[in-house]
Amino acid sequence: MRAALMYQAGDVRIENVPDSRIKHPTDALVRITASCICGSDLHPYHRMTTDDGPARMGHELIGIVEETGAAVTTLKKGDLVVSPFAISDNVCEFCRENLQTSCTHAHAAFWDGIEDEGGQAEAVRVPLADGTLVKLPVAPDSELIPSLLTLADVFGTGYHAAKTAGIIPGQKVTVIGDGAVGLMAVLSAKRLGAEQIVLMGRHKARTDLGREFGATDVVAERGEEGIARVRELTGGHGTHAVLEAVGHMPAYEQAVGVVRPGGVISRVGVPQFEEAPVGFASLFGRNIRLAGGPAPVRAYIEELMPDILEGTINPGKVFDATTDLDGVPAGYQDMDERPSLKVLVRP
Amino acid sequence: MRAALMYQAGDVRIENVPDSRIKHPTDALVRITASCICGSDLHPYHRMTTDDGPARMGHELIGIVEETGAAVTTLKKGDLVVSPFAISDNVCEFCRENLQTSCTHAHAAFWDGIEDEGGQAEAVRVPLADGTLVKLPVAPDSELIPSLLTLADVFGTGYHAAKTAGIIPGQKVTVIGDGAVGLMAVLSAKRLGAEQIVLMGRHKARTDLGREFGATDVVAERGEEGIARVRELTGGHGTHAVLEAVGHMPAYEQAVGVVRPGGVISRVGVPQFEEAPVGFASLFGRNIRLAGGPAPVRAYIEELMPDILEGTINPGKVFDATTDLDGVPAGYQDMDERPSLKVLVRP
Repeated sequence: MRAALMYQAGDVRIENVPDSRIKHPTDALVRITASCICGSDLHPYHRMTTDDGPARMGHELIGIVEETGAAVTTLKKGDLVVSPFAISDNVCEFCRENLQTSCTHAHAAFWDGIEDEGGQAEAVRVPLADGTLVKLPVAPDSELIPSLLTLADVFGTGYHAAKTAGIIPGQKVTVIGDGAVGLMAVLSAKRLGAEQIVLMGRHKARTDLGREFGATDVVAERGEEGIARVRELTGGHGTHAVLEAVGHMPAYEQAVGVVRPGGVISRVGVPQFEEAPVGFASLFGRNIRLAGGPAPVRAYIEELMPDILEGTINPGKVFDATTDLDGVPAGYQDMDERPSLKVLVRP
Repeated sequence: MRAALMYQAGDVRIENVPDSRIKHPTDALVRITASCICGSDLHPYHRMTTDDGPARMGHELIGIVEETGAAVTTLKKGDLVVSPFAISDNVCEFCRENLQTSCTHAHAAFWDGIEDEGGQAEAVRVPLADGTLVKLPVAPDSELIPSLLTLADVFGTGYHAAKTAGIIPGQKVTVIGDGAVGLMAVLSAKRLGAEQIVLMGRHKARTDLGREFGATDVVAERGEEGIARVRELTGGHGTHAVLEAVGHMPAYEQAVGVVRPGGVISRVGVPQFEEAPVGFASLFGRNIRLAGGPAPVRAYIEELMPDILEGTINPGKVFDATTDLDGVPAGYQDMDERPSLKVLVRP
């Protein structure tokens, strides 16, 4: 079968790989009908060395169940399913608390951590299929597919930022980053009742979509200038919540600058650093809280899907380009150089 | 009048200073009847240079109102009052949200930030007296004074740790540090219904008091050994909440080691560092939250006082030594060298 492989920074290729197949009784084999490229895929695209490649890529997927292992009970051949970016049994201590990204099962993993599988491919072996996959009540060619595909990662991730920030109706919120996750964080903050949503981003097509999703203000400036602008827009003290959807240090520093005393910085951009300011001058002195992490998107699928099925929200608008597998290398380049916000892949 | 002055690390003296007196209409002049030395006073005691001294010391006090400024309306001469370590108007935007440590009034400050006043003295000018001071319904020589004095800082600070950790009944909690604040954090976790409270500390007299306050387990080991022991005691995954009452990096690292995925590290030990690990390997990957900061103890006084007045709790047990002003320099030394847990000062 064919799949995307990243050899090193900037070098993605489509090649023949061994066919995915059932290995464990809890596995399912899924023929992928829709997949995509994630903003977080750009991190290795910027810095992967040949030591870490070639690596299978892609952690967001919708597909048709082709075969199930003997222990799989909730799925059957022909089911259309969506897979979160994290594999989980959905029954362990942490899954029951809706923290599926900390599932304790031996087969639990993030797709990016599974060596010989990935979503940017024709098919995939899904471990812990009963726990991981969620059935979709639509046809594989439904026009809702792009929106449903956001449940695999970016919508659930933006929603996680808003949830772990504990947004309540009437609050002021800053969203840092106008990538797909940032825009989904805007949609999520709106969904939870935020009154003012300031989106920090510089790409007009994206921030325009952000306004459509609920942003009340857009701040294109960065650094100290951006911080001053957000404070000016929000009454001088910043916002109750900051949803940080980038992961680089300047975004963290902006978050510290625009968060209100007693407020919370909720991070869903994968931090590209380990150490950061948290002491008296940054977080402690003003009782700023830090929250977030890899989103247990499995926990949010049932909650978010009805609004998509009813058409009251359309998160799939973050996809502004569609390609087949052959177009994946160009898709990475387009997302990196910014002409594309997020690329849908139909293998 | 006489007051404690710190000249540099290890050098505290009792000297004559200008009498405190009313400067603003919102001030009150308070004759101090009970004060104390704080664990946080030991930070400058370890590292203050002569450039920063001599500095007035002490931020926890009970006293009798001797005079009030023209604008003070809720207090009168003769009232016995307790002062939180932070001065606040108690009416601004943040005070109304119970974040008095972020009061926006021009006179708002921490006692430690007011150059010519301090609690380790015979008298003190209290700015924003109406907002800051709380009347005590007991006599100045009541045997409840030590417990009521803990409302000025350590009890409210320990309680803040437990509150910002969001402890709910049945949870497992680790408290790091067996100083007065750590012990108050134990008492507070117990008050909020924690089922298992692991106290990490090495001083038997203190951890014994911790057990009396509600600790179910004591771990004397530190570092990796201490982390392994806490995990062993708590079912392998650590505790939902970690209350960090020290402020040094090894305590932070222990907190990261013993916190459960999805859990929270709530810090009330003033961080003696600015940068700390918060990335994928420490906090982000496991969705660990960080909370805490300087405690708005003013917010908790009315809530905590009834239990003290009724005698159901006795937080004043953290005072294991009493002295007059002349004994303050020796009190610092005793707290630093550990024979004393916390020294009560009766000027």
